Amino acid sequence: MKISLGDLARLTASDLSGDSDLIIEGVNTLDDAGKTDISFVSNPKYKKNLSTTQASAVVLSPDLADGYSGNTLINADPYLTFAKIVHAFHAETITTGQIHSSAIISDSATIGHNVSIEANVVIEEGVHIGDNSVIKAGTFIGAQCKIGESTLIYPNVTIYTDTTIGARAIIHANSVIGSDGFGFAPQQDRSWYKILQVGNVVVGDDVEIGAGTTIDRSALGSTKIANGVKIDNQVQIAHNVEIGEHTVMAGGSMVAGSTKIGAYCQIGGQAGIAGHLRITDGVIITGRAMVIGSIKNPGVYSSGIPADENRKWRRNAMRFRHLDEMAKTLKKIEKQLDQ
Amino acid sequence: MKISLGDLARLTASDLSGDSDLIIEGVNTLDDAGKTDISFVSNPKYKKNLSTTQASAVVLSPDLADGYSGNTLINADPYLTFAKIVHAFHAETITTGQIHSSAIISDSATIGHNVSIEANVVIEEGVHIGDNSVIKAGTFIGAQCKIGESTLIYPNVTIYTDTTIGARAIIHANSVIGSDGFGFAPQQDRSWYKILQVGNVVVGDDVEIGAGTTIDRSALGSTKIANGVKIDNQVQIAHNVEIGEHTVMAGGSMVAGSTKIGAYCQIGGQAGIAGHLRITDGVIITGRAMVIGSIKNPGVYSSGIPADENRKWRRNAMRFRHLDEMAKTLKKIEKQLDQ
Amino acid sequence: MKISLGDLARLTASDLSGDSDLIIEGVNTLDDAGKTDISFVSNPKYKKNLSTTQASAVVLSPDLADGYSGNTLINADPYLTFAKIVHAFHAETITTGQIHSSAIISDSATIGHNVSIEANVVIEEGVHIGDNSVIKAGTFIGAQCKIGESTLIYPNVTIYTDTTIGARAIIHANSVIGSDGFGFAPQQDRSWYKILQVGNVVVGDDVEIGAGTTIDRSALGSTKIANGVKIDNQVQIAHNVEIGEHTVMAGGSMVAGSTKIGAYCQIGGQAGIAGHLRITDGVIITGRAMVIGSIKNPGVYSSGIPADENRKWRRNAMRFRHLDEMAKTLKKIEKQLDQ
Repeated sequence: MKISLGDLARLTASDLSGDSDLIIEGVNTLDDAGKTDISFVSNPKYKKNLSTTQASAVVLSPDLADGYSGNTLINADPYLTFAKIVHAFHAETITTGQIHSSAIISDSATIGHNVSIEANVVIEEGVHIGDNSVIKAGTFIGAQCKIGESTLIYPNVTIYTDTTIGARAIIHANSVIGSDGFGFAPQQDRSWYKILQVGNVVVGDDVEIGAGTTIDRSALGSTKIANGVKIDNQVQIAHNVEIGEHTVMAGGSMVAGSTKIGAYCQIGGQAGIAGHLRITDGVIITGRAMVIGSIKNPGVYSSGIPADENRKWRRNAMRFRHLDEMAKTLKKIEKQLDQ
Repeated sequence: MKISLGDLARLTASDLSGDSDLIIEGVNTLDDAGKTDISFVSNPKYKKNLSTTQASAVVLSPDLADGYSGNTLINADPYLTFAKIVHAFHAETITTGQIHSSAIISDSATIGHNVSIEANVVIEEGVHIGDNSVIKAGTFIGAQCKIGESTLIYPNVTIYTDTTIGARAIIHANSVIGSDGFGFAPQQDRSWYKILQVGNVVVGDDVEIGAGTTIDRSALGSTKIANGVKIDNQVQIAHNVEIGEHTVMAGGSMVAGSTKIGAYCQIGGQAGIAGHLRITDGVIITGRAMVIGSIKNPGVYSSGIPADENRKWRRNAMRFRHLDEMAKTLKKIEKQLDQ
Repeated sequence: MKISLGDLARLTASDLSGDSDLIIEGVNTLDDAGKTDISFVSNPKYKKNLSTTQASAVVLSPDLADGYSGNTLINADPYLTFAKIVHAFHAETITTGQIHSSAIISDSATIGHNVSIEANVVIEEGVHIGDNSVIKAGTFIGAQCKIGESTLIYPNVTIYTDTTIGARAIIHANSVIGSDGFGFAPQQDRSWYKILQVGNVVVGDDVEIGAGTTIDRSALGSTKIANGVKIDNQVQIAHNVEIGEHTVMAGGSMVAGSTKIGAYCQIGGQAGIAGHLRITDGVIITGRAMVIGSIKNPGVYSSGIPADENRKWRRNAMRFRHLDEMAKTLKKIEKQLDQ
């Protein structure tokens, strides 16, 4: 594909410095760009690579553009601008409108217009698939599930019965939506009695769910993923959890049962949030943080001990076991000195 | 389904306060219950919702029931009582006794009576499936596996060769049982020589295994999951591990190789247990704890730093790197003051 | 299979003490070995079991062999020696050279000689599978993927388009290679704009990838896993990450975007490495460590608080929140005493 720099400027509402007739044929990083590529800098850390890039044009913020003499698209948000340019060069997965002969689809399922259903997909009774959606190979969609329009489901996904997924969702491979919540009542003989999980999962519009992620159905009612939520790989969301609009959760983060997370939150990788909590809107939880209390105020919250040389860490970790005693000794000394 | 409150009292051996002829048609939470639903309170935290619920009857403990005027089932264990009522209203997945024409089953496999085998299931040579079991779509069962009676295996599960699974087990979607343990011997050129994993996995009766969970086969001998063990989603159990009866493991918890965990333990979410340890019976390990030594006494064990405002955490985490020096300084001062 | 002890000595270049004509029929642990088995001790911790084992021969290091009177293979590296003996007794999975009739293979795919493709495998257009490779049931291989020779892919794996995998790789069940990196640009209305991930994943030769592991394709360019890398279960590798030769990563470890890890590193279980870092060659990161800065020098790095009795931990964790104040108080006191 060939697009002129002028057209890219118009498409992204950027200012142009340089040759508007320049033909761009692709996108790449500063380091890997060839002579027909456009690239970008959003992290000032990479500014130094501008002097060595072979890219024929670059997207820059006004301050980085100042003093750069090459062909430039200037925009206050170079990252978003570049993302739009990538879309211009690369088509997203689109439906072929074909249903593969090996797909096994219940007679009572209703399949919208122009839907792709690929090899070995299994669709149970009462399912509805919205127009223009794509269900890739080996995916299982249980009875009574509702899938919205223009949704893309990658291979080997398992969606349990009664799950609802909105429009324009992207569900990555081998994820599981609607598995049983982890609920058991202790019995007198110390064995466990299963609490049937008779609720479901409701996923909104424009949601992305990563590979290998698991979202449990609720015990009663619904586990809810609101519109615009983006979830990375290997995230675990327990039963009855609710995630608010446009919240993002990075890889390996996990939320225990019945916790409600607000809108516009950012949950870092491998973070863990205990059950029955409320996290208000606009909270940022950094990677690996351990959240065991509700958070009422927006802001950035963190925990964890950064890695150190093993020899030093071992000594410090040993001392941690006596931190309470240290604090008491310190108080005693303070008192002693005050007198 | 309609069941009278009197019948529910008899079914659960509860005392009844109110109208025994009242017809109940479903179960729900206090908040979401409609006028024909029964609900419950087990966590006193939710007692306040009793005044606003529309539920026509509630399961309560004797102390919560005292002073409540609505229709009540009174039982010392409201949670277990409610779990039994949910079972009364909701049938569990049961076998249809049908084998789908797309299933690929080795001639040497033996399939019990009244077994469901759904679309695209693959069953290799020498496998045995017990009576009344259900194998859902896309699941792979490797050669020589033995699956007990009335066991339910959800879609897209992979069970490697020689795995044994007991009766009444529930195996959730996209889990993997019997994959190779992670064992490599270092060679002189610093590359790794694979230790073939020639053991297997043995899973007992009444075990539940969550979605996306992985359990590795042993190098030699068996990785063992005892009767009644309940394992949540995305749990990782390494080779040669043994988990004792009725132990529960929450989402994302992981156990390294050759560790033996006793019976009646509770392992919290994202907890990590190092290899070659022994955890005695009745140990509770709280969420995100890091266990690097054996535990000989029952009790509750924890670690981890709860999240704090980022600004404060950063300062404290920085200080942690000097905790050993702080402890030494403190000792020196104590000595100085003693003199 | 029967192999004489003399042949095993020759095969592994070990010294033999005892009966070279002794017939060995299998391998096992010291505890479980029967009278025709060979076993080994590599961890001196298990030396005591030598007195009770029924094994007819044992692999020992020279110092452990000294004073042991049974049949012995003596080798400076008993673990590697035993690994080679296990290979002698147990054949690895090998190709049957057959393509199952239910496999769905694009006409434009090129399949090498003597390849096994099992039931319900889906292979899209332009894929190449190298000679002697085995693709097990239910695995999906997207368009334009290249798979090397003698590679083994277990069931229900999903490999996205344009992925390259080298020779002699082992890919375990339900892993995902090539899923979209997690990249979104924030928009003015606080919703997220997807950064199309138009790069790919390139996996070298002799790589092993564990069950349920996920490796994301890059935004631009390639996510790179070098030759000889060994990755355990439920590992997450984000977009644009590079892992150097012969590095090993244990279960549940995760690496965020664009980080480069060197060769010969060892990453412990559940460790987390933040994005945009560089970890030099030969770094060992212990289990559960949190790495948030680049590491320039080889060595062992650690973090995390080992579990303690809950009652004690709670007090110490509470004190951690005031560690900075404690340090300041301590400094003040030191100063006061100095004067």
